[in-house]
Amino acid sequence: MEKKFTEIERLECSLCGKSYDPFKVQNICQCGGSLIARYDLEDAKEIMDRRSLSKRVLSPWRYHELLPLKDPANIVTLGEGMTPLLSMDRLGEKLGLKDLMIKDEGMNPTGTFKARGATAGVSKAKELGIESVTVPTNGNAGAAWATYAARAGMESYIVMPRNGPAVTRKEITAAGSHAYLVDGRITDANLMSEQLQNEYGVFNAATLKEPYRLEGKKTMGLEIMEQLNWEAPDVIAFPTGGGVGLIGIHKAIMELNEMGWVDEMKTRMVCVQAAGCAPITEAWEKRKKTSVMWEESDTVAFGMNVPKSRGDFMVLESLYSSGGYATSVEDDEILRTKQLIGREEGLFACPEGSSAVAGIKKLLDQGFIDRNEKVIVVNTGSGLKYPHTVDASLPLLQPGERISIEMEENVK
Amino acid sequence: MEKKFTEIERLECSLCGKSYDPFKVQNICQCGGSLIARYDLEDAKEIMDRRSLSKRVLSPWRYHELLPLKDPANIVTLGEGMTPLLSMDRLGEKLGLKDLMIKDEGMNPTGTFKARGATAGVSKAKELGIESVTVPTNGNAGAAWATYAARAGMESYIVMPRNGPAVTRKEITAAGSHAYLVDGRITDANLMSEQLQNEYGVFNAATLKEPYRLEGKKTMGLEIMEQLNWEAPDVIAFPTGGGVGLIGIHKAIMELNEMGWVDEMKTRMVCVQAAGCAPITEAWEKRKKTSVMWEESDTVAFGMNVPKSRGDFMVLESLYSSGGYATSVEDDEILRTKQLIGREEGLFACPEGSSAVAGIKKLLDQGFIDRNEKVIVVNTGSGLKYPHTVDASLPLLQPGERISIEMEENVK
Repeated sequence: MEKKFTEIERLECSLCGKSYDPFKVQNICQCGGSLIARYDLEDAKEIMDRRSLSKRVLSPWRYHELLPLKDPANIVTLGEGMTPLLSMDRLGEKLGLKDLMIKDEGMNPTGTFKARGATAGVSKAKELGIESVTVPTNGNAGAAWATYAARAGMESYIVMPRNGPAVTRKEITAAGSHAYLVDGRITDANLMSEQLQNEYGVFNAATLKEPYRLEGKKTMGLEIMEQLNWEAPDVIAFPTGGGVGLIGIHKAIMELNEMGWVDEMKTRMVCVQAAGCAPITEAWEKRKKTSVMWEESDTVAFGMNVPKSRGDFMVLESLYSSGGYATSVEDDEILRTKQLIGREEGLFACPEGSSAVAGIKKLLDQGFIDRNEKVIVVNTGSGLKYPHTVDASLPLLQPGERISIEMEENVK
Repeated sequence: MEKKFTEIERLECSLCGKSYDPFKVQNICQCGGSLIARYDLEDAKEIMDRRSLSKRVLSPWRYHELLPLKDPANIVTLGEGMTPLLSMDRLGEKLGLKDLMIKDEGMNPTGTFKARGATAGVSKAKELGIESVTVPTNGNAGAAWATYAARAGMESYIVMPRNGPAVTRKEITAAGSHAYLVDGRITDANLMSEQLQNEYGVFNAATLKEPYRLEGKKTMGLEIMEQLNWEAPDVIAFPTGGGVGLIGIHKAIMELNEMGWVDEMKTRMVCVQAAGCAPITEAWEKRKKTSVMWEESDTVAFGMNVPKSRGDFMVLESLYSSGGYATSVEDDEILRTKQLIGREEGLFACPEGSSAVAGIKKLLDQGFIDRNEKVIVVNTGSGLKYPHTVDASLPLLQPGERISIEMEENVK
């Protein structure tokens, strides 16, 4: 059998099922649906050997048959992926869990899992001859795309709400991107990217209007399974805004199941949202297929501030089909959990990742998760991107002043 | 032959050569010298196979025979190391270099190479039964040690100058450390850590007063050589404050040379300092063995603001014995180079890493480096830790406002 670098066959509309050519530039279906990459998994199963993957390159591109790129020369990389899956024994004990692990996505270029979407999306854009991209963003996705576009020698046009994380503006500027703040929400930024596409022909890489960032995020699921030696865990929890990360992980599990590498029935997907923006959790509780726009959304976990996701129905599908759950947590619980993770394990988590840990605790208390189950939580980014969520007022001493440990501890 | 996890034999004083037991708690020699780990490299050579290292764990602990830990159960890890070595073709072309690569240490936990020192130092401290550590720091080393101490369940006492990077205060606080600001310099912080050691018995893990962080940093050199398939490059440039990173990389090369894995004569070490704090470069230019305290030091690259390093003579030794160079660059050149790296390659470098790239450019112009040589530059940390070095004043638009690309570009 000829060994192809990619086993992609077609793009399939998530709504009407219509097929599109993955070797031409595509955005969405005529019907408005998002396009999903489909592979020849029979072929992939023949070609790939799960035991010898470790001999491949240290990069999510080691799973190249399950990614959309035809030619490895088009890979645009900054060393993303292959992030650690860390045992969290002390934290698990505090929560009442025997086997808790965190997949630390903060260890990616740009400090978040968005780098995975960008390496896939920008590489494929490069292969297709695209020279400029626009991304409407709450911040982190824009930072990742601006960074990878620069790495590819591509122009980028990033549009983001003015109240997004300050550090992402710095990253986008440092990458030489053309960037704009909008005095509004992500939905306003979306319209501006559409204008750039319509008027100037800039490729619009908005979430789920571009088919491949989902494939990049899928690699989180592939890595988790390889790191667990293809023994699927009982639960994977993901902090959910747009939901592409959760959809991607579940897509990985389903593809691996089809290849006979893992058992998809073993893993329940858990969607955790912020109480201040929980449209998918609300829909799940009512057993709906789609979510309703969440008005006046607000949360400290800015990456989860997505009032209405294009992919809401796919997140819900993943939850229903895997027997999973959705839950939401208040901001103060998110910040308390962030502190707990730091003190117990040293991990400087982001608020989003912390919310997923808080969500697991809630589901444990509610009896949806058993204390003996193997639970994986994805920390989607580094705490370095959210310095404002830590209050660090330290005592100021004069040179030569004596430090008294007891005194300090009494103060605490 | 019995396969030992570590081949460490002894600690050797860098000044008088006296030996110390590596399986007992040690700080410095009676004579005041720093203690350096020495291994049975003959044994290591027998046991280790450089071609099969890739089968080992994805961690610098894969080189465990050349690290000081007796029992793998004591490894304290957050997934540090195995950072990418990235080809920088576009940047190289701008500088006039044909084969430039950057080792991106920003992809470590805590966002800097200091995590390597902390995993080695804290793991060894744990093995030796140490329950609390103190670290005087300009910021990043303290953040790493606080983080790894928390991961180990150890108490940490971090003392830092008040003008250190703000985000490191957040990290240290998030890790539940006992932290203090001093209205002075790193030398004042040093005295306070000594007081904590003398008065309370807290282990003092100050740079080169603790033997093992050097070993952790050594793994940068081991990784670079493995990533280059044991073909030593012509030049390795390292931004130098205390200099432990440079010493560590050179120690790796010498150990690998002794094992017959690489040729130490091939690689010239380059020390780059900031013009506002360049004691080692000054000493190198005068062919001195040690440096003189740099008064009123000041640079935007805060990690390089070390007016007098304990390890200065070892850095100089590495430069002399490898036929290397020292140079220094002005702050405005550092910041310009940081912009260049971002625009050309997307990499969000730290000012320290940027200074090393700027230093390479200078040495190229001066004829010390040839354009056809293979040059490795270490970017010691992520730009995320230095957001204040980027000016990101972006245009603010109202919802529905039209973006005009031409207009924007005219403005630029």
